[in-house]
Amino acid sequence: MGLLEQTVANIDKLNQEKMDQAQERLDNLTKPPGSLGKLEKIAVKLAGITGNVFPKVDQKHHLVMAADHGVVAEGVSAFPQEVTTQMVYNFLNGGAAVNVLTKQMESEVTVVDIGVANEIEAKDLVVKKVRRGTANLAQGPAMSYEEARAALEVGIEVGEDLISQGANLIGTGEMGIGNTTASSAILAAITDLSLDRIVGYGTGIDKKGLEKKKQVITQSLATNQPQVDDGIDILAKVGGLEIAGMAGVMLAAAANRVPVIVDGLISGAAALIAKKLNPQVIDYMIASHKSVEPGHIKIYDLLDLEPLLDLDMRLGEGTGAVLSMSLVEAATKIISDMATFTEAQIAVGAE
Amino acid sequence: MGLLEQTVANIDKLNQEKMDQAQERLDNLTKPPGSLGKLEKIAVKLAGITGNVFPKVDQKHHLVMAADHGVVAEGVSAFPQEVTTQMVYNFLNGGAAVNVLTKQMESEVTVVDIGVANEIEAKDLVVKKVRRGTANLAQGPAMSYEEARAALEVGIEVGEDLISQGANLIGTGEMGIGNTTASSAILAAITDLSLDRIVGYGTGIDKKGLEKKKQVITQSLATNQPQVDDGIDILAKVGGLEIAGMAGVMLAAAANRVPVIVDGLISGAAALIAKKLNPQVIDYMIASHKSVEPGHIKIYDLLDLEPLLDLDMRLGEGTGAVLSMSLVEAATKIISDMATFTEAQIAVGAE
Repeated sequence: MGLLEQTVANIDKLNQEKMDQAQERLDNLTKPPGSLGKLEKIAVKLAGITGNVFPKVDQKHHLVMAADHGVVAEGVSAFPQEVTTQMVYNFLNGGAAVNVLTKQMESEVTVVDIGVANEIEAKDLVVKKVRRGTANLAQGPAMSYEEARAALEVGIEVGEDLISQGANLIGTGEMGIGNTTASSAILAAITDLSLDRIVGYGTGIDKKGLEKKKQVITQSLATNQPQVDDGIDILAKVGGLEIAGMAGVMLAAAANRVPVIVDGLISGAAALIAKKLNPQVIDYMIASHKSVEPGHIKIYDLLDLEPLLDLDMRLGEGTGAVLSMSLVEAATKIISDMATFTEAQIAVGAE
Repeated sequence: MGLLEQTVANIDKLNQEKMDQAQERLDNLTKPPGSLGKLEKIAVKLAGITGNVFPKVDQKHHLVMAADHGVVAEGVSAFPQEVTTQMVYNFLNGGAAVNVLTKQMESEVTVVDIGVANEIEAKDLVVKKVRRGTANLAQGPAMSYEEARAALEVGIEVGEDLISQGANLIGTGEMGIGNTTASSAILAAITDLSLDRIVGYGTGIDKKGLEKKKQVITQSLATNQPQVDDGIDILAKVGGLEIAGMAGVMLAAAANRVPVIVDGLISGAAALIAKKLNPQVIDYMIASHKSVEPGHIKIYDLLDLEPLLDLDMRLGEGTGAVLSMSLVEAATKIISDMATFTEAQIAVGAE
């Protein structure tokens, strides 16, 4: 059994006993039952994930997977392909949104080159290039089945490295000019939804660009015929290297009982692929924000997740995941640090 | 001119020049223009509020105004009146949700007794009691016009105290068994909306309690006939002491060009009162979360504010305001710490 199969097989159920204990404690804290809404649900989920009613998420780590997309040749993005490389340098120099936000949220950030077209050499960059960008998915498969599998395993390795170093909350982000096209193609392959309900403006194309993007996705699905029950085949035919890497990270997190934050459209597409490999993986996911991409909220429906933030964001890099980290940590503090009604000598309910 | 009139008169327009400069800088940062959504809007607003393109909100301070409500005699709340007092002690002992969350968000918290029914003596409690709870608003005015005015001025004094000590971001919260009834009555007095669209379950009454609550509000409005153009009259007849205090804090923040966070239904009702006194005050407000109370989102429409968080919360104490503080601070870091396209040598736009 390879690393991928082993990891997929290691994903187990949530710990129901600890979830029940967490719920019972939450109901005895000095607040109306359920009044902290989604924070309480997260506290219960974290108990189930970690097997601990009082888990810690104080070692936050955000991963940015970077890769290029051959489909940019079709003119589906507002930015040229070289921006992927330029933004990787920006991450390494600390000038991007994700740097500023991880600092604010007291999270570490690691950038992984899993398939950028250019060679980048820099201290602090994790180089695990599977290939130099994907092929143009409008003309044929984005990559081979073996490459998709390798990219998944890169994600697993990177995720397990972080976890072995103590990470107890992992954010997933990405950089890859063209990757909303690949992500929308994955969503279209999985759902049969009309492209009008799935495809958005990405980081800023115009209406003409939007029509082009839909046409490219239609053509890609017709040309490649991805096998809807095979997550690796979908990745290979219409996906991307960073999407595969993020799916791998999610599988690694679940296999090691560590919560992982799903963020925007691209991270969501990765989550759908991970779910194809083992549906149980979604129990280990927390959804950060509602993006303006139309396909995004549909992904959360499929994952049975509810986002915490409503910020009209569409930046990428996993910035929403980072912004949600303090909320997830707040949920752990609620359950560990609040007084119970008995401790505070407070009357419970009326009549 | 009294303190109230002076404060209301001191509220000026936002600084448009600084807002334009902030917008220009945001558009040159290494991200697609507008892609950080509401965070960018907040950054621009903060520039207009403070007159500084690079403002700081590192001295966060949360205020909890506590008071009692005579209307609890009608059976409109799931908790008995004594819980207001018990929860004040819980705040002072650090056991409540608001304590845990302010610690997590690195905010200070101050509790003000502006009208709790019982006498509470404790270090760290700011005692500025205007009266010992309101009268039953179903039977007559909740308080006199002069008491409402005095409670507004208590809020102004407390707010100005914090600001003079350096607070540069203020959260507004409350504790007062029965105060969703008063807040819904204020909203009903101002809007003419059907009570079905305004009145919710508060901290946990049942369907029968909900009908009772609506009936009480209908009776109160008929009995008291609040003058819809006079915020102080509305407060006096169907409001509450902590609601008046919060409105005062908002006026003080605006008059001193400090951002103030509006939170749930009660804080929103206070914001509507503040707006009646000077419509410009809403420019200084930031909306935290979308509560499950049905009237809440309507309040944000009236204030022209969009909430940042979607957490299904209904706890009170201003807990949503506290949870949003790290997002507001993140907006300030975005504008001050991100690299521009030129600095990062990144290609702008396509073609």
